[in-house]
Amino acid sequence: MKKNTSAQKLEKMGKDLVKEIEQNKNPSLEIPVRSLSNTIFDKKQNILTLGNNTSKRHFFNISHIKKFVQTIEAAATAKELVEVQKHLSLREVYYRIKRTLPGTNIDLVDQQEDSNKAIEDLELITSLSREQLHINANKMGSVAGNVVVKDKGDLVNWAKLGSGGWSIPSNVEEIEFKSVDAEFVIYMEKAAEWERLHEDKVWKRLNCIIMSSQGQSTRGVRRLLQRLNVEHKLPVYVLTDFDPWGFYIYSVLKFGSISLAHISDRLTIPNARFLGLTGDDIENFDLKKHIIKFKEVDAKRLKDMGKYDWFKDHKEWKRQFQLMKQINGKVELAALSSKGISFISDEYIPEKIKKKDWII
Amino acid sequence: MKKNTSAQKLEKMGKDLVKEIEQNKNPSLEIPVRSLSNTIFDKKQNILTLGNNTSKRHFFNISHIKKFVQTIEAAATAKELVEVQKHLSLREVYYRIKRTLPGTNIDLVDQQEDSNKAIEDLELITSLSREQLHINANKMGSVAGNVVVKDKGDLVNWAKLGSGGWSIPSNVEEIEFKSVDAEFVIYMEKAAEWERLHEDKVWKRLNCIIMSSQGQSTRGVRRLLQRLNVEHKLPVYVLTDFDPWGFYIYSVLKFGSISLAHISDRLTIPNARFLGLTGDDIENFDLKKHIIKFKEVDAKRLKDMGKYDWFKDHKEWKRQFQLMKQINGKVELAALSSKGISFISDEYIPEKIKKKDWII
Repeated sequence: MKKNTSAQKLEKMGKDLVKEIEQNKNPSLEIPVRSLSNTIFDKKQNILTLGNNTSKRHFFNISHIKKFVQTIEAAATAKELVEVQKHLSLREVYYRIKRTLPGTNIDLVDQQEDSNKAIEDLELITSLSREQLHINANKMGSVAGNVVVKDKGDLVNWAKLGSGGWSIPSNVEEIEFKSVDAEFVIYMEKAAEWERLHEDKVWKRLNCIIMSSQGQSTRGVRRLLQRLNVEHKLPVYVLTDFDPWGFYIYSVLKFGSISLAHISDRLTIPNARFLGLTGDDIENFDLKKHIIKFKEVDAKRLKDMGKYDWFKDHKEWKRQFQLMKQINGKVELAALSSKGISFISDEYIPEKIKKKDWII
Repeated sequence: MKKNTSAQKLEKMGKDLVKEIEQNKNPSLEIPVRSLSNTIFDKKQNILTLGNNTSKRHFFNISHIKKFVQTIEAAATAKELVEVQKHLSLREVYYRIKRTLPGTNIDLVDQQEDSNKAIEDLELITSLSREQLHINANKMGSVAGNVVVKDKGDLVNWAKLGSGGWSIPSNVEEIEFKSVDAEFVIYMEKAAEWERLHEDKVWKRLNCIIMSSQGQSTRGVRRLLQRLNVEHKLPVYVLTDFDPWGFYIYSVLKFGSISLAHISDRLTIPNARFLGLTGDDIENFDLKKHIIKFKEVDAKRLKDMGKYDWFKDHKEWKRQFQLMKQINGKVELAALSSKGISFISDEYIPEKIKKKDWII
């Protein structure tokens, strides 16, 4: 079904162009504008989305033609991938598209940036995500919990994978959930925390799913979290360090990002809950001695993020930004180990969830 | 068994100290010196190892005492971990050890560097690896193939894990191989290549195991590769970009690194084979147009690595270094996609292995 939908949409794009050519029109593509000015924070949906501005790109236009051809070339590559049921990474697509036009010294793409942009345009034109176009992002992250998925013909039980867990694919579009026996998902930024929680059997004891990537979450991880949230109504708890980068990881998961605003509906989790660390935890759990003083770059990042629409008008977030500014430093989740090897699993997480002590 | 061995060795260390105290001696620890001057390239074993120089550290010595106590503290933490059968990351151990000594303003450790060094000393004193001391490194990487392992009571079949594969734990010491039906292992530096090979079912078609981390391989990945190589006699093929960083990844896997020379015997694979990319591949597969010019840092790296003992006296490697210097640039594995979506799986890898076209 998915194959057909993607193939059909790509074919329609081609047929529309052929029609214009047959009618002796200047072939054109209409593309929503991706820019800060056309990115809006949709307060109702609570996500970043694209506005209604579009621009038209023509074949017979000296300043349009290169991008026009790059987009067509990206579409041809995606169609090939969808048809043969294979996937390539962004980098590999760049190499597939890259070539010198015959009889000229013009390269179709000069750098990966060109093919990346062409692929983003293609997403906008076809309303298909990169994953649906069979172009993969980075692969990273692990997951464990009482969940069975069907993927490429295999039944994979996330509860039976030893200390490693399931390695999350870059593309989770075709994964089928066969059974999901869990009440919520805990997502954490660090693989070390994931191993802590996994060794302590947190997913078994709290009947939940634990998931991590490393640092900023990959698209595969975001989409998997979102599918569990939307298709299985599981609340998603986000566990990060108390620092601007942790807040940003939460922000991207929940509200989306400017560069991916056009697919917010496939990637964001508007009801995601921030479980910590918070400024209050530092007080309550006596973590002050573990404060790591801000470098200039951290303080600047905090200041910049304080201006985000969804933080600056939010009473509780404003307080957290204030607290962080006051201590002028960060505290890591790992610092909870000072309270006990399994303190995070035995006390921190269960207590905070029980007391509904999260920020939404 | 392992638990006992680790616990016993840590206990012996403590008992030796108690004996010195009872004999009114100055308590001391004898530690092999980790420095470039005490790191030697063992040409017989083909790995980097530590020489015989040791240094003695005393409790009653103003310049020794801090490090002495840090090492004892690391030993106490490791003993606790081994006894409760739990694991912590380096960062978490740092927080466990960190505290202000009562009645003073002296912190036992000032930064993670201190506890890291103490743990390395502990490895040397006890001849136990960090993993055996239950202190984990980073978790990263995926694996697939006809292998069944037993881990934490679960039987994990690497052939039945969908598009994701098994997520490699940071610590693979306790994994038991139940069945290994494979002729060799292909290790690659990039997760995107791994997904390419996995989608193309290379492990099934060539009866092998495919494994990747991301960039420099983690200790978990290195140890897993080494165990497959030593315990199951599987040749390990290394697949990297044609650039100094790719060569370095191979170099660390095969010969070890200076900072980890003391556990080379647990991490290195002296018979690892470099499958490519090579300078000859660039010629043979017409990849010249995909050369990415060196930045200064790349050229410098190449020059520095050309001085390594195991490269500078090796005829074939000398040639490869020459070829790279001549083109003054690098070529990525991903560039093979320009020859066909699955060119790397269908032609490049099988052909090179068939022709024994690797560097050893």
